[in-house]
Formats: sequence, C-alpha cells, structure tokens
Amino acid sequence: MKFTISRIAFTKALNTVSRAISTKTTIPILTGLKLQVNQNELILTGSDADISIETTVKADNPDNLLAVESEGAIVLPARFFTDIVKKLPEDTLTIEVGENFQTMITSGQSSFTINGLDANNYPHLPEIETNTSIPLAADLLKQIISQTVIAVSNQESRPILTGVHFTLSDTNFLAVATDSHRLSQRKVTLENPVNGSFDFVLPGKSLTELSRMIDDTQDSVTLSVTENQALFTIGDTLFYSRLLEGNYPDTSRLIPDSFDTRISFDAPELLASIERASLLSHESRNNVVKITVKPDEKSVTIYGNSPDVGNVEEDMKPKSVEGNELEISFNPDYMKDALRSFSQATINIDFTSALRPFTLTPTEDSDSFVQLITPIRTF
Amino acid sequence: MKFTISRIAFTKALNTVSRAISTKTTIPILTGLKLQVNQNELILTGSDADISIETTVKADNPDNLLAVESEGAIVLPARFFTDIVKKLPEDTLTIEVGENFQTMITSGQSSFTINGLDANNYPHLPEIETNTSIPLAADLLKQIISQTVIAVSNQESRPILTGVHFTLSDTNFLAVATDSHRLSQRKVTLENPVNGSFDFVLPGKSLTELSRMIDDTQDSVTLSVTENQALFTIGDTLFYSRLLEGNYPDTSRLIPDSFDTRISFDAPELLASIERASLLSHESRNNVVKITVKPDEKSVTIYGNSPDVGNVEEDMKPKSVEGNELEISFNPDYMKDALRSFSQATINIDFTSALRPFTLTPTEDSDSFVQLITPIRTF
Repeated sequence: MKFTISRIAFTKALNTVSRAISTKTTIPILTGLKLQVNQNELILTGSDADISIETTVKADNPDNLLAVESEGAIVLPARFFTDIVKKLPEDTLTIEVGENFQTMITSGQSSFTINGLDANNYPHLPEIETNTSIPLAADLLKQIISQTVIAVSNQESRPILTGVHFTLSDTNFLAVATDSHRLSQRKVTLENPVNGSFDFVLPGKSLTELSRMIDDTQDSVTLSVTENQALFTIGDTLFYSRLLEGNYPDTSRLIPDSFDTRISFDAPELLASIERASLLSHESRNNVVKITVKPDEKSVTIYGNSPDVGNVEEDMKPKSVEGNELEISFNPDYMKDALRSFSQATINIDFTSALRPFTLTPTEDSDSFVQLITPIRTF
Repeated sequence: MKFTISRIAFTKALNTVSRAISTKTTIPILTGLKLQVNQNELILTGSDADISIETTVKADNPDNLLAVESEGAIVLPARFFTDIVKKLPEDTLTIEVGENFQTMITSGQSSFTINGLDANNYPHLPEIETNTSIPLAADLLKQIISQTVIAVSNQESRPILTGVHFTLSDTNFLAVATDSHRLSQRKVTLENPVNGSFDFVLPGKSLTELSRMIDDTQDSVTLSVTENQALFTIGDTLFYSRLLEGNYPDTSRLIPDSFDTRISFDAPELLASIERASLLSHESRNNVVKITVKPDEKSVTIYGNSPDVGNVEEDMKPKSVEGNELEISFNPDYMKDALRSFSQATINIDFTSALRPFTLTPTEDSDSFVQLITPIRTF
C-alpha cells in the first residue's frame, strides 16, 4: 500500500472519522483508524462499536491530490497518527506500508515510521441496504436533533430513555425524547411520503455527533434503517449508529390539551431572566426558580433565592397573560434548555396547575413543536 | 453607599481585579472583592495575599457613567457578583448597600439582593512610596517576562527558583530565571539610569498575571520596589506582588563563553521539527530528542523515538554549521519553550560537548538574550 495525498484533504477526512474513535474503548484495535486504498480512492474508517464513520477521499477530485501507487489496507493509532499529519511540513504527504505493518509517513525532510496493525482484524461495518432510504433536508435534521436531544436521559437506569424516539409513516415524521422530568416533541411533514413505516430509537450521543458532522455545505442527508442500525449518508461520508433495543414508552397522552393559565413571551427575553434567577438557585441546595402569574395585573414575576447568598426578583413584561392566578416552581436548567430550543421565536407557556406539567410552544405553527416540563413541589 | 455605573466599564474593572482573586484562599474575606466609593471615584480591590490589584473607575470619564449618590465601602462575593453583573439586562446598574451589609443590585426590571461583608475587615494593601519609581516600556516588559518566566521552577523544594531574579543599576536591567535544568537571561539597557540599585526576585506566577494585564493601549508601566513588595502602576490600575525571600544563586558563571560546535537556524523552522520529534518522545518513558551534527556534511539530523509507537528522523537544512561533530540529547519541551521565546529570529545554538549545557542566542544583538539548556545523558 502506497499513496500520496493533500495534507489538508487528509486532515479533514481524519477529523471526520476521529469523531467515532474513543480512547476509552475496551477493544484495542478500535483506538486505531483504518485506511483502505483502492485504485481511485482512499477509504477511512473509525468506530467505537456504537458509532462508525466511513469517509471516502476520491482521486477524481483534483483538490485531494490523491495519487495511489499500490492498493492495500492498514490500521494506525488514531490520535497519534492525526497529530503527526497535522504537524507535517509540506502540503502533501506519502504513506507507505512496509513489512510487519511498519508504516512510513514522509513529507519534505520529515520521515516517520510507526507501528500499524493488520487491517484484517478490524471489525466489519454493518451491511445496510440503501435502496429504501429517506431523504431529509440537512438543516431541518440538525434542527430536529437540537430541539429533542436536550430532553434525553443521562441515566443508564432506563437505557431506552437515553435515545430519541422516531416514528415515520406516510409524510409524518415525529421525534420525541423524555427523561421523565421533561419532554421534547417535534413534528414535521415530509415533502414526499416514505415507503412503509419506521419506529426506532437512536442514542442521543449518536445524534449529537451526527449533528456536528452536518455543515452548511450539505443540502441533504439520507437515512436508512434496519432492525438494529441506522445509516445516515452525508455526501462522501457514511455515519452508522446502533439503535437502542426495547419499547419506547407511550408519550402521546403526556401532553395536556387544555390550559388554565397562559403567558406569552419572546423566548430570548424570558431566557435572560431565567438565567439571572438561576445564578441564585444554583447556589442553593434545591435548584428551584418560582414564577408568579397575576392575570388581573398583567404581571409575571420571577424569583430566585439562595439562603446563603441572597435573592433576585424580576417583574416581567409578558406579551400577554390570560387565565387563572398561579404560583409554580421548576428547575431553571430545564427551562433554559427549552427556551434556547426556540431561538428567537415568540412562545406560549400553558399551565394547568402548580403540580401539573406545563408546556412551551411557538405561537406560530404551535402543533409542530412542544417542550414539556414537570414542576417541582415546594410546599 | 449608593452609585450608578456603566455595566461595560464596571465589568472591565471587575475582570481586572478578579485576576488576583482565588477561590482557593484560606482567608474567607479574600474570596470577595472590595468596592470603595468616594466622591468622584469607585475603587475596586482584589487580592490573594501574594498578588493584590486595585483599579479606579473615575467619574470624570464620561464613558464610565459613574454617578455617586453616597460614599461607603462593601466586600461582595467576587465570582458570584461578577456573574450577576455580566448578565444584567440594561446598560447601567445601581448598587446600594442597606442594613447588615445587604447589597441591592438593580438594572431594568431585575433586582438582586446579596449578602455583603464589612469592608473594615478587608486586609490593607502595602504602602509603597512611588517617588523613586522606574518607568518601563510596556511592550518591552511583556517581552522580558515572556522570555524569562518559561525557565522558573514549578517545584516548591527551592522556593527562590520559582521566581525571576531582577538586578537594576544605572542603565543596566538584567532578568534571569533558572529551574536548574535550563536558564533564561535577558539584558536590557534602559534609556534613563535608575536611582540607586535594585536586586529582587518576583514570583513567576505574579509576572504571568502582570503580563496578562498589560494590553496594547498601555505605553508605559512604572515599577516601585520595597524590601518585600513590588508595585507596578498600569494606568489607573495598581498591581502589587510580594517578593520572594532569600538569595538567588549566582548564575553569572553558568553561561559558557566559548563553543566547539555552532549551528544556525530560523527559530520557527527548528521549532516545527522539534515539535514533530516530541510527538514520539512524549510516547516514550524518557522524553528525549537527539540531534546529530556533522559539520563536514553540513548536516543536522533530529531523531525522536518511542519503542511502542515508532520513530521519526529529519534531515535539517541549517543556515550554517561549524566546529566539531556532535551527538547530543535533550528534553524537547525545554527546547520548544526556548525556541518559541525567539519568535521569528535567526538563532545560533552553541555546544561544547554532549554533556555540557548549550546555549541559544539571537544572531543579532546576541548578548541581550540567552537560553541555556542542560542536555540529558543517554549513554
């Protein structure tokens, strides 16, 4: 195996597959990255067993400066090899595998020899048919991920809740996540109906990594799903994730369909106030912020308190207030995550009572996106 | 005590004094910052007992929007108070101290009440006469610090070596630091002779903080020294540091005055090669890089090696090579620090033998700056 390649193009590909590579893996060969050189392409693979990423650098793109002298494959120590490539002196580098998997990396006056591993021992990636794949707009997918992944659980006690639950049929696309204290639900109507119906749970960690891989140059991502794997195709890169096993709880009845008190705010304005209130609640043993709503006075007041440090009170100027008087307490960190997910939108917050979950929805297209938060009992 | 101030100007002053405030202090009141309001100014003070910083916000600068309603002083929890000020909604804020040191911070609809401490319990800053103070060009002082502070010791076993040794007399300014493995020495000729002579050791940590405080807007810094304190005046800010006690070792005879082998390089080019070689030496138990010099062949070769991972070899193109053949090994991290301190300059590296310290000096004005490194015996 021997090839020459542009250092910039190679570094970009190394960064892409490195997202999947963990130093903490219990399978030693997975701390490495696999290079497979074919006649007109170089394929890089990284994996942590949950996520696998494969990206192809093609010789027919002149920017890649890829010249293959002989085919072959090798596994190289990922972090260390990437550090070397980043520091090489010239614009191109040559990699040649010699005897006993000894690999020579040359660039200008610099010549490294490092110990590689037999690529035959590297795990095979899952085989997934892509002929029933579903096209998704790249920016929409990123938005769906960012809006739902905040509510996945970090606790391994109920593994299924560490993922986002996707259901697709016809033109309906639904994504739901809940850690049992809060819930995020996003609905999208697809342009084209999907072939069949899909119901699967993707790990939140996989979705976060996937989202980081989608940059502004991508218009579209395609999704293929099997019984235990999902495959996202992003240009020349394949992103594999295992699915979570088990049945996701039925969340359809958790969202209240009526309210007794409704307040309306610009999300960023309310976010800034909650952030200030949480400065104090974070200094307290129980991290709680309180909202008091008085519809007669059109007033909404936010309180944060720490016995050691002090307190904060803000008289807010809501866009509107309607319904019953209310005093309700909640975890401000859940509220901050929820408010950030609406970015600049105007939102309604709908309450039924001080002990029942309340919802945040955008005032426009309110059915498409719901954040639900369970309050905290303080009396 | 009550005043109103621009949030931007106040935040800048808070950031300045916060440099001196440590959360790890054993003196509880030093986790706070002191505000002293006089008729036309606000004075902020932060201290960790080693370093103290005092900065003044003046009412006569209209940008500060400082309006004093009543004088007084208070100590407030530094980190927490700074977080609040940064997140306030309006461009100005008002601070008012009430009963029992309860302090109200208001800005727009936001109103915080936090528990302050009695300013009478805050330690007094040292009193230092500034009538014999020494003016120093701000950019030169920053350069001297960055060039010497790299060689101070991190080990508390010989406390005096954790500082930089300054000697000033007439127009001579000398700064030396050594951790006994390497040494940095910078000589400067002052424009105006100093009054008397000075010999003192400033902690490396103080100098690093001082350097961060000097920005491009400052032309000049003045230095005043007493028996156990130094005071740097930077515009409206006073920076106090304690001096290290004890006698600094005599370093004048450590620097060799002749050489048997000399090589010459652009510092950045050699730095890049050493960085690559250190990628391998860092993977090895003994962090060593080797240079081989062959004057007959005009060749300089750099080797890095790790039994587990591999090796690297670079045939360098030095600007010149003269003297005896040599093979010498050293800690590449010392070499990297030294090379960085020359920034873009061309340097000479002068060796006597494989076991004797070698020096790096700029080819121009070579007497002004020396980096000395002790080699490592590998045979």
